[in-house]
Amino acid sequence: MQIIDGTIASPKGFYATGLHAGLKKEKKDLGVIYSEVPANAAAVYTTNQVKAAPIFVTKEAMKDTTIQAVVVNSGIANACTGKLGLENAKEMQAITGTHLNIPQESVAVASTGVIGKQLPMEIIEAGISNIDLEKPEPYAFHEAILTTDTATKEIVITEEINGQQVTMAGVAKGSGMIHPNMATMLAFITTDAQISEELLQEILADKTETTFNQITVDGDTSTNDMVLVLANGLAENPVIEKNSKAFEQFVAMFQLVSETLAKKIAKDGEGATKLIEAQVVGALNGSEARLVAKKVVGSSLVKTAMFGEDPNWGRIICAVGYAGSHTDPEKIDMWIGDQQLLKNSQPQEFDETIMKQTLEKEKINITVDLNIGEQSGQAWGCDLTYKYVEVNALYHT
Amino acid sequence: MQIIDGTIASPKGFYATGLHAGLKKEKKDLGVIYSEVPANAAAVYTTNQVKAAPIFVTKEAMKDTTIQAVVVNSGIANACTGKLGLENAKEMQAITGTHLNIPQESVAVASTGVIGKQLPMEIIEAGISNIDLEKPEPYAFHEAILTTDTATKEIVITEEINGQQVTMAGVAKGSGMIHPNMATMLAFITTDAQISEELLQEILADKTETTFNQITVDGDTSTNDMVLVLANGLAENPVIEKNSKAFEQFVAMFQLVSETLAKKIAKDGEGATKLIEAQVVGALNGSEARLVAKKVVGSSLVKTAMFGEDPNWGRIICAVGYAGSHTDPEKIDMWIGDQQLLKNSQPQEFDETIMKQTLEKEKINITVDLNIGEQSGQAWGCDLTYKYVEVNALYHT
Repeated sequence: MQIIDGTIASPKGFYATGLHAGLKKEKKDLGVIYSEVPANAAAVYTTNQVKAAPIFVTKEAMKDTTIQAVVVNSGIANACTGKLGLENAKEMQAITGTHLNIPQESVAVASTGVIGKQLPMEIIEAGISNIDLEKPEPYAFHEAILTTDTATKEIVITEEINGQQVTMAGVAKGSGMIHPNMATMLAFITTDAQISEELLQEILADKTETTFNQITVDGDTSTNDMVLVLANGLAENPVIEKNSKAFEQFVAMFQLVSETLAKKIAKDGEGATKLIEAQVVGALNGSEARLVAKKVVGSSLVKTAMFGEDPNWGRIICAVGYAGSHTDPEKIDMWIGDQQLLKNSQPQEFDETIMKQTLEKEKINITVDLNIGEQSGQAWGCDLTYKYVEVNALYHT
Repeated sequence: MQIIDGTIASPKGFYATGLHAGLKKEKKDLGVIYSEVPANAAAVYTTNQVKAAPIFVTKEAMKDTTIQAVVVNSGIANACTGKLGLENAKEMQAITGTHLNIPQESVAVASTGVIGKQLPMEIIEAGISNIDLEKPEPYAFHEAILTTDTATKEIVITEEINGQQVTMAGVAKGSGMIHPNMATMLAFITTDAQISEELLQEILADKTETTFNQITVDGDTSTNDMVLVLANGLAENPVIEKNSKAFEQFVAMFQLVSETLAKKIAKDGEGATKLIEAQVVGALNGSEARLVAKKVVGSSLVKTAMFGEDPNWGRIICAVGYAGSHTDPEKIDMWIGDQQLLKNSQPQEFDETIMKQTLEKEKINITVDLNIGEQSGQAWGCDLTYKYVEVNALYHT
């Protein structure tokens, strides 16, 4: 398995591009991914009961499980927009289908941005008509899906599976309202592997649990979250069967792509200066380990302590205590980096110089051993900074 | 029912005082409440699985349900302090009993402050020996329990019940780690009413649900939370029986004291500039209404929007959507102040000048009508500010 430079269009037969349609002042705000052939597709969506219009349209399009194109706009979320919003999302799908000369129902739609505003359809229509897949600029797609993100987020890997070179690419946007319960933010994964849509959906659901669902920026679950995977089969590998070596290879690729995107989203959380990784071991089961890890990285007090570069283990053990997992409050061990802070819940001497260096880094690892079982789990978050408050107090409706 | 000036020592037979023992640099850090006679007592405690030593000592003291004194220190939480911490909490109880010439087991103990530090017992012992109830300074108790609070929090009310003047006083501290699951922070309520400990516990548990448990500052549930109520009976009213007029009067007093303290804690949340009150109506049941209200005031995005004085209803409906209650996402009405923002989940025109004035105030009311039932609930929180980050990034261990 090899990480390579590339874009969401690196797997065989995929094209992508992005442009400035006019929803945002200057930045790119409209993008399309296209596959030469209909791709097997899988998706997970936000668990928020208030769902944006494009979520409904994409769910409907996914009923026959093949997708040939994805159209995405940023700037306006098309959420809480009622009937007109739903019609606009369908219209956006139809215009894209016509422009690309493919059936409307093979187009997935995603939106991100301000809630409660209607899409200006003349801008969307003009924007889509300017999409030119003969001169694609795939990296522009990575840019076109961003909102308050400070950087694009992508990864491309390649691997020989059953004698064929299979490539998988992922791109995501994140930053605010990142506390997914199922899907998170927008993430798109393309691959030229041959794999059934059932198996693809199973892998996506499974890996979402341990990657995208384990990141939190601010505890808010968005109305627009979606992870969409397209597998167009053009690598011509033998169709991947469950529990084969090829399956293991594919799952490993999927894990790396998902976890990398998830971490990139957490690290680029609004206002963040640090990525915080919590690793919980010794739990009764994996879901409780993930729960505790997520409570640790989600705690405002832990997040501000990390911003202040303070090894405040009291706030961490406090979060462990209210997480709601099985815990023996007398048996908790804890480390920041490789410095042990707690043994059996009691403070330990540590090297303050090394701790200071550890906390100054851009990535901080917190490890908690509950010492009551054998299972482990991870979660990723970021520090809570003045900049977070600034970004969110100034982002006006 | 009349609100009067006074202190936690205003009800008959109560004394209180506070002083600087030396746990903090200069501020008062040790206080005692004392009743002339043993008082019927009720208490609720943190649900955090990691509990501070004084919680265990007070729980033990409460087994025979009368309490004659409360000793409280601020500066050190005596949490995660193991066997020695438990011995110290007991020692603090014993020294207080000896000094006041009452049985050790009639003394409740509470601590608040930094987690993981041992109490310096020579300072505690010297401090308690300086407690002089012949020259009490009751307001000094209100000060002695504070940590990052910017103001003392108290309320005293009086009411004639069955021909006798009954007084009830409450004092609380809050500020950080305020997201109680059961009790919250430290709150002490004294009354000279005659009432059984069973009924007192019942009323406390019931009212905690709708007041103290409905505030959130930062989503973190502390290891030291406690609400303790003492009723010494010196008002000589006939013992209050359930479902009598006297009971109703007493419950109304208790509600006012609890709600007032809860709101004062929320308003004085770390770094806060505004109190945010969410009222959810039209819910299927009260607990779901309270859940939704608490998610709204707990959302970092709502909190920063209020700080930015932005009527960002999108973030509010987003919080309603992920709260996990029954909801019809198409039927939500919403107001900020008296301006309607949503009807059937669709944006409404509102008066921007009035909205601006509403959002500039120190208290902001958000009302959400789920339109699916008849029940309502409230919650209180505060805005999320630069100062919150400052307070918590700089509060070093």
